[in-house]
This record gives sequence, C-alpha cells and structure tokens, in this order.
Amino acid sequence: MSMNKETLVSAVQKRIRQAGREGTPERVFGCRFALSIMSDNYIDIILGSLAKTDTSRVEASTGRLSTLYRGKRAQVLDALEGCFIHAFTEGIHMTLEATLSTDEGPCRFSEDDVCPNADSREIHFPCNAKLKLYCAEEKKGDVLASSIAAGHGVLVKEDYYCTVLKGDIQAVFYTIEDICKEMDHLPGHPALEVTLSVNSPTAE
Amino acid sequence: MSMNKETLVSAVQKRIRQAGREGTPERVFGCRFALSIMSDNYIDIILGSLAKTDTSRVEASTGRLSTLYRGKRAQVLDALEGCFIHAFTEGIHMTLEATLSTDEGPCRFSEDDVCPNADSREIHFPCNAKLKLYCAEEKKGDVLASSIAAGHGVLVKEDYYCTVLKGDIQAVFYTIEDICKEMDHLPGHPALEVTLSVNSPTAE
Repeated sequence: MSMNKETLVSAVQKRIRQAGREGTPERVFGCRFALSIMSDNYIDIILGSLAKTDTSRVEASTGRLSTLYRGKRAQVLDALEGCFIHAFTEGIHMTLEATLSTDEGPCRFSEDDVCPNADSREIHFPCNAKLKLYCAEEKKGDVLASSIAAGHGVLVKEDYYCTVLKGDIQAVFYTIEDICKEMDHLPGHPALEVTLSVNSPTAE
Repeated sequence: MSMNKETLVSAVQKRIRQAGREGTPERVFGCRFALSIMSDNYIDIILGSLAKTDTSRVEASTGRLSTLYRGKRAQVLDALEGCFIHAFTEGIHMTLEATLSTDEGPCRFSEDDVCPNADSREIHFPCNAKLKLYCAEEKKGDVLASSIAAGHGVLVKEDYYCTVLKGDIQAVFYTIEDICKEMDHLPGHPALEVTLSVNSPTAE
C-alpha cells in the first residue's frame, strides 16, 4: 500500500496524539483530610462513618495523619461529603481539615460517573467553616473563594489568612465544589485548604 | 532661625522616612490555629492550656474556628508551641492545625524580644506531622520544606499534597521555625500549613 505525504502526516499526528494521551495521564483530583471528634468515642464514630461511606469510586488510603481520596473530582467530593455527614453526631463537636488539589500521579479512575454517597446531599445541619485557595496569584484565590461563598449565601468575612463561612452544610459543600471547579482554569496546582466545624461550644 | 537648602532637604527626607515607617507597617508574622482533642474533657484541656500559655507578647484573638496570634515571628512561634505543649496530655489523642503566614495589617508589636514560653522547649514527646509550604513557585516550597525537615532528622517522605514528618516535638518545631525564617526570602506572602498529631491510635 502506498502512502502519500498527507496520509503520512495524518498518521504521525494521530500517533503523537495517542502517545500524548498515554504519556500524560489525566489530571487527578485529590483530597487529603482528617476528622477530629472531640469525644471519648471518637474511634467508634470514625470507624462507623468510614463503614457507611462508599469509596468504591475513588482510590482511598488511610495513614496516621490523614485519609487520602483520589480520582474524579465529583466522586472524590462525594466520598468526602459522605464521610463527614456520616460522622456527624448530634451534640458532639467535630472538625474536618482537608486539602483539595490536583496531581498527575498514577490513578485508576472509576469507569462510571456514579456518586454513590449522593443521599448525604439531603442531610442538613449548620456549619462553621474557613477556607483558603492557594494559587499562583494570591489575591485571585481570595477573590474567587469569597465571591463563590457569597453566591451561596455563606460568606461571613475575609479574615487574616482565610475566608470565614457559615451556613447549612449543603451550601458550604456546594461552595467547596464550585471553588474546586474553578481550579481547572488556574495555572499549576492550586490547592484549597478547608476547615469545617460543627457543634462548637464556643460562642459566636 | 534661618534654614539653608541642605538643612531643608535633610528635614524633608527625615519626614519622608518617618512617614514611610508609619505608613508602611512592618511585616507581621501570624499564626491561625486550632487544637483538636479527642476526649470528652477537651474543653478543660484547652482552657487549661490557654491559661498556662503566656500570650503577653502577641496579639491574640479566639473565635469559633481558630485562635489567631500575630506579632514578631519568634514570639508568635513561642506562644504557639507553649499552647500545644501545655495541651499535651498523656494517652490523649490531639492534633493541631495551623496556618503560618505574614501580613501588613495593623499590629502592636511587643517592645522586647522575650519569649515567655521558652520553658516548653525542654519538653519532649514523639509527634507525627505533615506540612505544606505554599509559595509562588510550587516546587520550591516542597524542596525547601523537605530539605529543612531532613536537616532536623524528621523527614519521612513527600506524599500527595504534603511532606510527612515524624520525630521529637522539639525537632518538629525547629523545622517549622526554620521554614518560617525562609519565608522572608520568598516573594509575596508564602504560607505554611501544618498538622501535628500526638498519641494517635492508628498504627504506623
């Protein structure tokens, strides 16, 4: 079979594109987090929450300091919210500390787009939160975080080193989700640092 | 009294320099942090720690989500370490989440350089930690954090979104201090995110 110049160029370009897909893995979304439960029963509460959370769509690993979920953004956030909601216990003070970012490390992505913890989106309780979006342009991160929080009605104020939020847990998680979506449009690997707090005994 | 040109220029320059000192405040070092104590007695432990910590050299304020210390770097770190060490309770799992950064907001600096919690530098216990230095150059932050941790003998590994540390609490705090000193040489407002964990029941 003879191949003219046009066909050859097209074949080479196709091969380059394929190599590109294989050689440059998709961007992985990840969340490293820890729950802190101010109770003697903290181990039971955490183990109970982990057992109720469906992590079948993410790569999950737990160490001494934190748990790491990696995969598709929607599914990682679904697992994170599931874990937090399942750990919530009436009258028990609990905090979540989380780093949400992206990387290009190896990752086995879920083949589907199912969010198996979606039922946790129907649970409501009040939440205090602070967050900080670190990206190449300092001010841009703060402006983005604050404007998205304001859009969801949970912005309290900008304070030293963070933006302060308060509202229903669902509005707070939608804020987090929308900020994470904006990360795709920022250069490098922006990171969102989040702290959530429920049932704090400290007066407002 | 007559004023020649040289005296006049000198007087104007002096006034400009003074205005510069007043108008451009010194860079403030700050730490926003929260202790999480996995015990029914968490309120007593935190209040006891706050009572034992001398915060006379920093500007301190506490809210629902975190406590903020601002002032001179050495004195802020002294107060932070004092608070953490005083909260340490044998057999009780505790974590600290802290953001260390700088700002140019108004601040009443201590007139002396005394670190009134220096006795906490004599206390020793094992600690797990993770940290992340956010600065304009992504890689530079990670390299700096890891090399300083290695120098203090507490580096475990670089992991997704953080550097993992383990060692005596003093070596960990010296690592934090040295990274904070390096911030002076980085552009903008770099921020160090730190998590410390003691008495974790999770196996290594």
